Amino acid sequence: MNDATRYRVNPDALRAFVAEVYRSVGANTEDAHVAADAMVQADLWGHQSHGVLRLGWYYARLRSGAMKASTSLSFPVDAGAVAVMDGGDSIGPVVGRAATLDAIRRAKAHGIGAVSVRNSNHFGTCMYFTRMAAKDGCIMLCMTNGGPNMAPWGGLKKMIGTNPWSVAAPAGRYEPMVMDVANSGVARGKIFLAQMRHEPIPLGWAVDSRGRPTTDPVEGLKGFILPMAEHKGYAIGTMVDVLSGVLSGSGCLTDVHGPYDPVNRSRAGHLMIALNVAAFQPLDEFNARMERYVEALKAAPLAEGVDEVFYPGEKETRAQQTQLEEGLWLPADTIAGLDAVAAEANVKVVARD
Amino acid sequence: MNDATRYRVNPDALRAFVAEVYRSVGANTEDAHVAADAMVQADLWGHQSHGVLRLGWYYARLRSGAMKASTSLSFPVDAGAVAVMDGGDSIGPVVGRAATLDAIRRAKAHGIGAVSVRNSNHFGTCMYFTRMAAKDGCIMLCMTNGGPNMAPWGGLKKMIGTNPWSVAAPAGRYEPMVMDVANSGVARGKIFLAQMRHEPIPLGWAVDSRGRPTTDPVEGLKGFILPMAEHKGYAIGTMVDVLSGVLSGSGCLTDVHGPYDPVNRSRAGHLMIALNVAAFQPLDEFNARMERYVEALKAAPLAEGVDEVFYPGEKETRAQQTQLEEGLWLPADTIAGLDAVAAEANVKVVARD
Repeated sequence: MNDATRYRVNPDALRAFVAEVYRSVGANTEDAHVAADAMVQADLWGHQSHGVLRLGWYYARLRSGAMKASTSLSFPVDAGAVAVMDGGDSIGPVVGRAATLDAIRRAKAHGIGAVSVRNSNHFGTCMYFTRMAAKDGCIMLCMTNGGPNMAPWGGLKKMIGTNPWSVAAPAGRYEPMVMDVANSGVARGKIFLAQMRHEPIPLGWAVDSRGRPTTDPVEGLKGFILPMAEHKGYAIGTMVDVLSGVLSGSGCLTDVHGPYDPVNRSRAGHLMIALNVAAFQPLDEFNARMERYVEALKAAPLAEGVDEVFYPGEKETRAQQTQLEEGLWLPADTIAGLDAVAAEANVKVVARD
Repeated sequence: MNDATRYRVNPDALRAFVAEVYRSVGANTEDAHVAADAMVQADLWGHQSHGVLRLGWYYARLRSGAMKASTSLSFPVDAGAVAVMDGGDSIGPVVGRAATLDAIRRAKAHGIGAVSVRNSNHFGTCMYFTRMAAKDGCIMLCMTNGGPNMAPWGGLKKMIGTNPWSVAAPAGRYEPMVMDVANSGVARGKIFLAQMRHEPIPLGWAVDSRGRPTTDPVEGLKGFILPMAEHKGYAIGTMVDVLSGVLSGSGCLTDVHGPYDPVNRSRAGHLMIALNVAAFQPLDEFNARMERYVEALKAAPLAEGVDEVFYPGEKETRAQQTQLEEGLWLPADTIAGLDAVAAEANVKVVARD
């Protein structure tokens, strides 16, 4: 039952719809499913910014050929515990999943495995991959660079992406413990929202076009969003770019193009490092330790006004449980965007109520 | 020439002095030198909080036997690319250096190497180790847990340490690119300073004892310091604890004791992961890319009032150059602390002017 601002969609139907769109431009069934699953999964975790909202952008990139619908992966380096994978401009989540599975395989053989990926595309949320590894008994570190959206600390040119990274670990009978952060302090969309509402923004969100701290959203939008935790976010974001882009021989700094760009090759790079827990200690001992760890965090006394302490990643797990039971609620403009893609791709629109 | 609030010390003399103190409690010459070098190096980088200021605390731990002056390392796991090292409660930087060299050795053989360390001690700054690896052609990720000083997000009990982590990469003819961050938003000392000056603290530094945001340093000191970037710092700090403490089978959460504690075993754990750049691409190509990277950052147009954009780690390199030329300036109370240790250890005080 919609209230005109949002509609409810069945996640399986949504996945099938997105996969159909990918198939319409030539993706094979398996790749189309992976691309669709990565997007719908982000919605299920409550990360709508990385969900089907993005389908139109990806579709435009597939149509222009900036992102290739048919997957072509190669291994310029294939050397035991480590590899360099060339993603051949293929679909981001397809490349990401292949690199993840390959890193896990190497970790199972060598205790640790690293896959450095070049010439990929925007692959969605990092936790899509790290959770996959955690469910397979591995701790995984995954990162990617992205199109430039922050200036170096003290500078006035967009050179560093939000460059997100994630680590996930198995947690026994609990769903994996997962951290997943971007290195920008605030999404640009929040500043747009403040502008629309004629509200000031907190200091620390943005600087104006001359690099001066500002609380004016209009000036902030003309200027630069700031990294999280000031210079720390700059340093982390830069290092993620080096590890993702420079080490793999992919694009870095302003050479990387984001998913909003319909025509340019992305040249995004990633790094996946998987550690096979069982190489360090028996997995069931680790799991038992992690269960006690989760329980200790959740037993902490609560701050005023707080109902529950969450362990990292628990909120996303909770959002998924709720939305699998109740259906996935999508904003009306997201649904309108999906319908527009459906029309262009000549695919039946996704059912909603 | 001192101005009564600070004194100038020769870094070599300071290193020799600190080493003498370690030798006085039974450390061998090499280990004493490593311990001294790690501390003096932090001072040279301008990180006085991790410098010789701490000597008295470490000395107390050595005297009580909480930290062992004679090094005893073992390898419960020694399996090609990965290892678990038991630090045997030995001197932190000695354990850290051994783990670093071992991780580099494994990386040279396998492309990547990981050493998970249990039963270590506070090892100083992470960048002491990551820079070492970068100078040897490796990218290194190093992290450690520490004594609890933050509450889980929304909680009211100190359970998570500042749990710092660092990544360094070779940068060709430039000194390594280095990030090194703690996951707390602000050092407790800054809140003490505001209290002494009767100044308010910014929102986001601390909450009071009931978990309410506060600008009152007195209430903040009774309460909890907040992680950097809010819940993000909580998630990162927790994950560093899992990777350092749980994976190695060392202490985690409230089981870890900080350097200020004179009597308890530390049970700190670390994780060192080294990637041999040459396994991914020719090192000189990587170095050339990194040189262009550094130059691109430094060529960014400048924000108003900013003289220079620094690449991550450059400020520390610069501080070291200056202090090697001009001598190391130490606050009078740090010098007084060193003199007190000298008296107790029956070691000649360090010369100063």
